Amino acid sequence: MIFNKVLDNVSIYEAGKPIELVVREYGVHPRDIIKLASNENPYGTSPDVVDAISRKAISSFVYPDDSMYELKDALANRFKVEDKNVIIGAGSDQIIEFCVHSKCNKKSKVLMAKTTFAMYEIYSKQTGATILKTPSDTHNLDEFRKIYKKEGADIIFLCLPNNPMGECLDANDVYKFLDEVDENTLVILDGAYQEYAKYKDKAKKIVVADVTTKYPNVIYLGTFSKAYALGGLRVGYGIANKNIINTLYKLRPPFNVTTLSLEGAKEALKQKSFVKKCIKKNFEQMSRYEEFAKNKGLKYIPSYTNFITIYTGDNSSKEIAQKLLEKGIIIRDMTGYGLNAIRITIGTKEQNSKVFEVLDTLI
Amino acid sequence: MIFNKVLDNVSIYEAGKPIELVVREYGVHPRDIIKLASNENPYGTSPDVVDAISRKAISSFVYPDDSMYELKDALANRFKVEDKNVIIGAGSDQIIEFCVHSKCNKKSKVLMAKTTFAMYEIYSKQTGATILKTPSDTHNLDEFRKIYKKEGADIIFLCLPNNPMGECLDANDVYKFLDEVDENTLVILDGAYQEYAKYKDKAKKIVVADVTTKYPNVIYLGTFSKAYALGGLRVGYGIANKNIINTLYKLRPPFNVTTLSLEGAKEALKQKSFVKKCIKKNFEQMSRYEEFAKNKGLKYIPSYTNFITIYTGDNSSKEIAQKLLEKGIIIRDMTGYGLNAIRITIGTKEQNSKVFEVLDTLI
Repeated sequence: MIFNKVLDNVSIYEAGKPIELVVREYGVHPRDIIKLASNENPYGTSPDVVDAISRKAISSFVYPDDSMYELKDALANRFKVEDKNVIIGAGSDQIIEFCVHSKCNKKSKVLMAKTTFAMYEIYSKQTGATILKTPSDTHNLDEFRKIYKKEGADIIFLCLPNNPMGECLDANDVYKFLDEVDENTLVILDGAYQEYAKYKDKAKKIVVADVTTKYPNVIYLGTFSKAYALGGLRVGYGIANKNIINTLYKLRPPFNVTTLSLEGAKEALKQKSFVKKCIKKNFEQMSRYEEFAKNKGLKYIPSYTNFITIYTGDNSSKEIAQKLLEKGIIIRDMTGYGLNAIRITIGTKEQNSKVFEVLDTLI
Repeated sequence: MIFNKVLDNVSIYEAGKPIELVVREYGVHPRDIIKLASNENPYGTSPDVVDAISRKAISSFVYPDDSMYELKDALANRFKVEDKNVIIGAGSDQIIEFCVHSKCNKKSKVLMAKTTFAMYEIYSKQTGATILKTPSDTHNLDEFRKIYKKEGADIIFLCLPNNPMGECLDANDVYKFLDEVDENTLVILDGAYQEYAKYKDKAKKIVVADVTTKYPNVIYLGTFSKAYALGGLRVGYGIANKNIINTLYKLRPPFNVTTLSLEGAKEALKQKSFVKKCIKKNFEQMSRYEEFAKNKGLKYIPSYTNFITIYTGDNSSKEIAQKLLEKGIIIRDMTGYGLNAIRITIGTKEQNSKVFEVLDTLI
């Protein structure tokens, strides 16, 4: 069976190891497993959201409202845009897929930071597009400018803040950069962790309505998977001018978000104080990781997210991740990115204490 | 903003009208709405499945097990194949998307019945492929043969039984046809309604393990959206030899099925007697529609599914559908398919009585 040739070059995304796998492979009791590999909200789904989902479970046989009217409306209100500026996806991941597949083909170029969200590259390769990466792991807009000037690009990805590194560009620097980009280049501002970044530093806040009004070639992406604690339900969104949104709709499969996911997201969006509390605790706990790294003399990247990337110095990050795994602690080794570093989701106080306890014996 | 040219030719799938929309547009109370437009299981999700989902709701913050180990294993056991022969999608829809996008490009040809599941054409057009359709609305294998001999095809869709018409080819006729198809043509056997067809007539039953072992160019698709009563949760699957499955994996976005959907589907697969009871009642109720059509002198297609397609004779199907809608009864008008016919999902006894009551005043 012969398939499209572009697929020869496509690799498969490796997700953080799920709890079920560690149970199966290492015989650790599920109760003892600490999963800090996928940047989930460790404080769990808000009880009000859990209740709303449970009440809706009886409607699982009914196809979702494919207009997604209520959630779209709630998001439009939140971001001060109109319904026609919003598209909802199975995670913001799916909006990335729509953007890349609508814009790219074998002749296209896609520009991104050297070390950023892996799916940008995977979706781009599915279309046969050429990937252009900056020399630096973290976002450096002068490097973006230099490559863009020389090579051009059909899509530019800015991850604000950047997964898996944790750094975040200032919004004003992003706006200045946008002024220099051609109107036929689609710029994707991935705000999956924006809730964390803007809490820590207002200068990081992307004003979505302004930026998508001023720049008709910009789409902003957000998600319910992180601060809103719904990683398992796959809901994300894109906000842009209606020409972009209408085109992305052509690639949207019907019923791309489940009945229960729509219900959960609608309720989650109301949980402002819950979300704020989680983010506050996140940064309180993050300071313990920073202190740990300093005490051990390890370099780390100041993070505007709910994870921290720590270089492991003389120790092999791969070995450290494996040894943690055997103890039931799941984190990310970054060897695959060419970095001797680990990425750890900031857990609850108790989870982090356990991590430090084990990590202390390894580094 | 310039997008890929193939999208100019892509239309957007029109889903059955959701209850929320009828509430908004016609002011009918949700309690009084009868939704028989999307072939959901009218008996609702099995209570055991509802319980399992409710219990799992608290885990909504955790990303799904991306290996989908447990559900894959359960499906492999059910169909007597191995895990490596199974891929799980956000509805079987998503597996259709993977198949078309992995196999097709502008030079490709896709062959299908004239009137069949709309997404076959929509996904194909996204790749720029040429659509070939048989002259007959329902499946006629001789027409497939004739076109295939003359034109060839990269993909052939057989919908067994066929949505939205309801007819079903005999399995033996399908196998004979497969013998004549080139090994580089991917044949997609869409079994979304197979549970209904094989209950009504054993001759319709596709033996999945046999057919996917004997024919390395065949993929079988199944879904949890119909007989398993989980339309809102978006879970479907593809079964084929591992070369096909491995290639489709390259197009699978990570976490394409939600945590709660996986949980619901795992539990639903165990509900054998529930499913059987629903199917039995389905055909008991269907005979009332057949009788209604006969009494009114209307032509209908004997159906192997949970819906029936009735030609409306001298009456405009569009008008009938609209008048039913105003009474809170949602069905499908088939004018869009070029047919003066309506497609009605077989509802519960009470729902159907209400339909006949209103329909009697219209035809």
